[in-house]
Amino acid sequence: MTKDLTHETVAHGMQPEDTPELRALYQGFADHHLIPLWTQTGDLMPMHPKPRAVPHLWRWKDLLPLAEASGALVPVGRGGERRAIGLANPGLGGAAYVSPTLWAAIQYLGPRETAPEHRHAQNAFRFVVEGEGVWTVVNGDPVRMSRGDLLLTPGWNFHGHHNDTDAPMAWIDGLDIPFSKQNDVGFFEFGADRVTDYATPRFSQGERLWAHPGLRPLSKLENTVSSPLAAFRWEHTDRALTEQLLLEDEGQPATYSLGHAGIRYVNPTTGGDVMPTIRCQFHRLRAGAASRMRRDVGSSVFQVFSGRGSVVLGGVEHALDIGDMFVVPSWVPWKLQAETQFDLFHFSDAPIMERLHFDRTAFVED
Amino acid sequence: MTKDLTHETVAHGMQPEDTPELRALYQGFADHHLIPLWTQTGDLMPMHPKPRAVPHLWRWKDLLPLAEASGALVPVGRGGERRAIGLANPGLGGAAYVSPTLWAAIQYLGPRETAPEHRHAQNAFRFVVEGEGVWTVVNGDPVRMSRGDLLLTPGWNFHGHHNDTDAPMAWIDGLDIPFSKQNDVGFFEFGADRVTDYATPRFSQGERLWAHPGLRPLSKLENTVSSPLAAFRWEHTDRALTEQLLLEDEGQPATYSLGHAGIRYVNPTTGGDVMPTIRCQFHRLRAGAASRMRRDVGSSVFQVFSGRGSVVLGGVEHALDIGDMFVVPSWVPWKLQAETQFDLFHFSDAPIMERLHFDRTAFVED
Amino acid sequence: MTKDLTHETVAHGMQPEDTPELRALYQGFADHHLIPLWTQTGDLMPMHPKPRAVPHLWRWKDLLPLAEASGALVPVGRGGERRAIGLANPGLGGAAYVSPTLWAAIQYLGPRETAPEHRHAQNAFRFVVEGEGVWTVVNGDPVRMSRGDLLLTPGWNFHGHHNDTDAPMAWIDGLDIPFSKQNDVGFFEFGADRVTDYATPRFSQGERLWAHPGLRPLSKLENTVSSPLAAFRWEHTDRALTEQLLLEDEGQPATYSLGHAGIRYVNPTTGGDVMPTIRCQFHRLRAGAASRMRRDVGSSVFQVFSGRGSVVLGGVEHALDIGDMFVVPSWVPWKLQAETQFDLFHFSDAPIMERLHFDRTAFVED
Amino acid sequence: MTKDLTHETVAHGMQPEDTPELRALYQGFADHHLIPLWTQTGDLMPMHPKPRAVPHLWRWKDLLPLAEASGALVPVGRGGERRAIGLANPGLGGAAYVSPTLWAAIQYLGPRETAPEHRHAQNAFRFVVEGEGVWTVVNGDPVRMSRGDLLLTPGWNFHGHHNDTDAPMAWIDGLDIPFSKQNDVGFFEFGADRVTDYATPRFSQGERLWAHPGLRPLSKLENTVSSPLAAFRWEHTDRALTEQLLLEDEGQPATYSLGHAGIRYVNPTTGGDVMPTIRCQFHRLRAGAASRMRRDVGSSVFQVFSGRGSVVLGGVEHALDIGDMFVVPSWVPWKLQAETQFDLFHFSDAPIMERLHFDRTAFVED
Repeated sequence: MTKDLTHETVAHGMQPEDTPELRALYQGFADHHLIPLWTQTGDLMPMHPKPRAVPHLWRWKDLLPLAEASGALVPVGRGGERRAIGLANPGLGGAAYVSPTLWAAIQYLGPRETAPEHRHAQNAFRFVVEGEGVWTVVNGDPVRMSRGDLLLTPGWNFHGHHNDTDAPMAWIDGLDIPFSKQNDVGFFEFGADRVTDYATPRFSQGERLWAHPGLRPLSKLENTVSSPLAAFRWEHTDRALTEQLLLEDEGQPATYSLGHAGIRYVNPTTGGDVMPTIRCQFHRLRAGAASRMRRDVGSSVFQVFSGRGSVVLGGVEHALDIGDMFVVPSWVPWKLQAETQFDLFHFSDAPIMERLHFDRTAFVED
Repeated sequence: MTKDLTHETVAHGMQPEDTPELRALYQGFADHHLIPLWTQTGDLMPMHPKPRAVPHLWRWKDLLPLAEASGALVPVGRGGERRAIGLANPGLGGAAYVSPTLWAAIQYLGPRETAPEHRHAQNAFRFVVEGEGVWTVVNGDPVRMSRGDLLLTPGWNFHGHHNDTDAPMAWIDGLDIPFSKQNDVGFFEFGADRVTDYATPRFSQGERLWAHPGLRPLSKLENTVSSPLAAFRWEHTDRALTEQLLLEDEGQPATYSLGHAGIRYVNPTTGGDVMPTIRCQFHRLRAGAASRMRRDVGSSVFQVFSGRGSVVLGGVEHALDIGDMFVVPSWVPWKLQAETQFDLFHFSDAPIMERLHFDRTAFVED
Repeated sequence: MTKDLTHETVAHGMQPEDTPELRALYQGFADHHLIPLWTQTGDLMPMHPKPRAVPHLWRWKDLLPLAEASGALVPVGRGGERRAIGLANPGLGGAAYVSPTLWAAIQYLGPRETAPEHRHAQNAFRFVVEGEGVWTVVNGDPVRMSRGDLLLTPGWNFHGHHNDTDAPMAWIDGLDIPFSKQNDVGFFEFGADRVTDYATPRFSQGERLWAHPGLRPLSKLENTVSSPLAAFRWEHTDRALTEQLLLEDEGQPATYSLGHAGIRYVNPTTGGDVMPTIRCQFHRLRAGAASRMRRDVGSSVFQVFSGRGSVVLGGVEHALDIGDMFVVPSWVPWKLQAETQFDLFHFSDAPIMERLHFDRTAFVED
Repeated sequence: MTKDLTHETVAHGMQPEDTPELRALYQGFADHHLIPLWTQTGDLMPMHPKPRAVPHLWRWKDLLPLAEASGALVPVGRGGERRAIGLANPGLGGAAYVSPTLWAAIQYLGPRETAPEHRHAQNAFRFVVEGEGVWTVVNGDPVRMSRGDLLLTPGWNFHGHHNDTDAPMAWIDGLDIPFSKQNDVGFFEFGADRVTDYATPRFSQGERLWAHPGLRPLSKLENTVSSPLAAFRWEHTDRALTEQLLLEDEGQPATYSLGHAGIRYVNPTTGGDVMPTIRCQFHRLRAGAASRMRRDVGSSVFQVFSGRGSVVLGGVEHALDIGDMFVVPSWVPWKLQAETQFDLFHFSDAPIMERLHFDRTAFVED
């Protein structure tokens, strides 16, 4: 087999001759809801992933004003449920999907507003790139949302949000809505129209039970599918990344690659991903550092949290600013480059790929 | 919340007033590849799975003649790769998908024909409802295909088929092509144009190593993602089902439900499913018995292997004959009923649902 | 540190000077139930395992006549429970322990005798080197015992035996009695004085449900701690070993090492060991073949099943005949050598070592 | 079976008649290193665990002065390795074993002293009931030891200690020496005579990488057998326990039982026990609270960390003061009672019991 030979080109050349008999056969297929493989092998089974989703970048300077405008025009309440605006991958034909598996949105809550409670089989998280003042109430536990925090709402937990301040707040949401929709796994249930508890504690009950490193309550020895710790505070993330770079300075093997620190948010009952379908990570690159160019099976979304840098995405370099979001479809090569110290939040469908053993990564020569 | 209130009806009533400002906002969304959640919550996040795929039945008396006609008109060889005709769910808009995750096809190989070798990330199996004479060669190991056998080709194993006889043979294929295509995980590689070994042994090397109940070779102590036993013979399946019904007669708890015996094909290194995305099972109902009416998250395909009976599928009863195939989309209620002793092969995407913790089952009152 | 320096020699040289003050201190220790580490480090924490148990060989020609004599003199019944004679490792000071973890015995049941039912936390198995005619009834399921069979009685299952013939029968038992006794984990309960079912079926219910390669009953999808398949028949073991050697002849990677076939008996719900504390395996060497000389952490017991050969055990070669049993204490080097085709049953405490991560193996130059 | 009937009494009554033939048989057993089961069933297989180890209490007011006296009389250095004094269970016949599986000791290091480096297969930890100033250097990583801290030295990690101050320091050690010795799994290797790094950082490298709740370094995604976090600080333990009691006050399900808070120290890569053989936990009871009376299979050791209370141990109540240590052998009933707020450190062999499926717990009516 020569290197140039691809499934697609071969398939194209191999179709049977167009005869009346063949047409009759094909009509028979159509009549009986059948489709032959040989006319579409190359499309159904490509040589490597050829996503319809395309690499794309959304600018925070575009997202935030549109979210603010929505705040003035669109009520939040039962029915619409959330004032959330989904990033629609230009390759996915008008669906509000950032990738085939993931949904990403900016959500906006005005002063003193409440987003009513509901629950769904879909897994969800919020990440706060700026602002504060909202509490998300998850199964009755009020969880503060502040800059740099990751907050979880794993599947089938009731949740609502309320803004306790006179200023609006925006953040990003990530969910597995496209995967759930595509594979018909979604369930949904309404809860209270108001949140069940308007208290505004500094720390959620989940944190008070679980945010003690290496310690597990004796009352909670059963492992859980998703993390019982549902708030991951910026203070800890920042400290973990800072220590990795300091350890690297001291000659210790602590960073992911040279000048590139990173953490994965995990379920403390298992050490594994926080939810069954979504991986959450955070990257910090030193000024001047770059990550290795790589391809991964599965799709990822990044949001710049602080600093300045760029991403080389499918061969194109994009300068990045705070709040900017971009999607990396399956098998598209990507590489981060830091001008200043550069911090990025990152989520992906990697748990799906790994649990089903479809995961592959290849490093690419620059 | 009243029983009548659904997400969909509520969402419908809650849209913001149509004003020039709102139109400008929506145009801004469109300009920046954004889609608001509030206009489509009910569609994206339904109260329960509302599959586009529909329940559907394909008759063996239709499938087999079309496969035979293909044998006369369509060559098998490099490019088209396989003379396989996919069951296209009428709800899925013309894709060759039996469900959102699964591909099911009838494959046909004429006398003395060879289907060339290739490998792909997609997981595959064959099940033989009638006939014999073909060997599938998996990573160099020739595997006989006979009536009632289940044969595996887990992801990334080279495989080709050849017919050693002067009679044609047809069988069914099951793969995770739709899932792989949708989630961009597929890889494909061509192998030899002929199969690497035309030997026709009664038992494959895999069986000779692994088909000894409760015994594991000392040379193979590492667990594998998919089953190293790649041929499950009818003789064993039949005996297992026969024994379950005899044990039930003796008052022992052996059957799945009264008069309903069943086995799951498993990976002997783990006791779990044979492949990471596809579950394979076999059911036998006594004459007069019925399974319990149930709904499951995820989709299933059945093929009648022997006997006569019916399925109640989404509220409609269909009489079934040997070779008939039907698909049960997610959350559609189904129930088997046996007129005579009734044997059915069954495959599904249950491993996906379970590994991602989306699995749910509900039993339904008749 | 020089190569000659050992913990033991160093410790010896480092004791504090014997003074009245030291004697008073040591008396204080004794008064308060204290023992200093520095007087016994080398003994408590040797450089490598220094088992008190010694390699030892028991001849079947000695064992069987003594068992037969017991049959004449010692009743079997409630209280003594079993006519079993334990192999007492000469290094273990008079305990009926073949090693620190394992108990091995020859058990004898006269014509028409019954050994009453009981259950215990200890895990047990029987292996039959010759004879037939006894059924062991495990939780009400009568299990035939025939030459070459391995029969399990995992912890806390009621079991009794009865001899259905006019000839006596002897077999070997293996249990984790020493481990259980040492670590205080044992529970015991009497059952019926007679066995609950005197039926003599060819196959147990457990086999009828589970002895179908790669097939699992739909009624039994929960994994179990020990194997639900409790009878492993010689017919299957023999065939598995035969096939491995034939595959080796064909150039396939099937044997454990050259001319050395082997199987592990496994729990079909997990693919792991049949019981939590005891591993069971079977080895077959071709005439003229030898295994590699090795040391393992943990102890093993072998019984010759057929053929002639020898073992090199702790540097001493012992010729072996059918029924002969020998013990390999921890870290003692061992190697099998076959004169004719040479079959050996083998059990060990390897699951304990592996689950607690104490397992180590080293291959030794001859 | 009546309640009074025990295995022991039954066995006793069932011995065969003492005849010359029986004596000859028994002599034959002795000659061939065999021991019959029927003479010792009740001892080998008791109705429930009957440990040789007895409940026992060691007073800190006795332990500490003896450790101090050792400091004056016994050098610490290569050979003796550690100035550690083991708690010898009075039931275990003079071995330095606190239980059949566990070793517990008080260790003492004088001003500016160094305990040289070594490594062993045995798992070890230290817990500090009072004092500070020593660093234990584990695989080159200096780990501060301060009041209330738990410090790990999992099997086969090099480690030494040095006292950086002009005051002595004492702490307790826990190891699995008896288990290792009994089962012949121990390996030992000398390291440097001095510790490899005399730095005295506030936090170890392990903590800097791992002590961030719910965050895992991207550079360390492989799970480890033992915890890579090797220092569990009092500050976190105290806060976790405080929060549990506050949550209980608020009506949340956070404590282990009423007024009884508790944490388990865990491996952050798995959420499981810190080492394969030793469980470490910490209990806090409110003034006036009591734990439920219970029996467990396996043995435990407690040390009072602060407060005043008592333990009911095998039916006997013992008043307890800071530093006091007691052992609970297998199946002995125990119950804690708090006079003031009462804090206790606790370690056990529970991972052994659970991994081998011998664990059982029974709650006992007071």
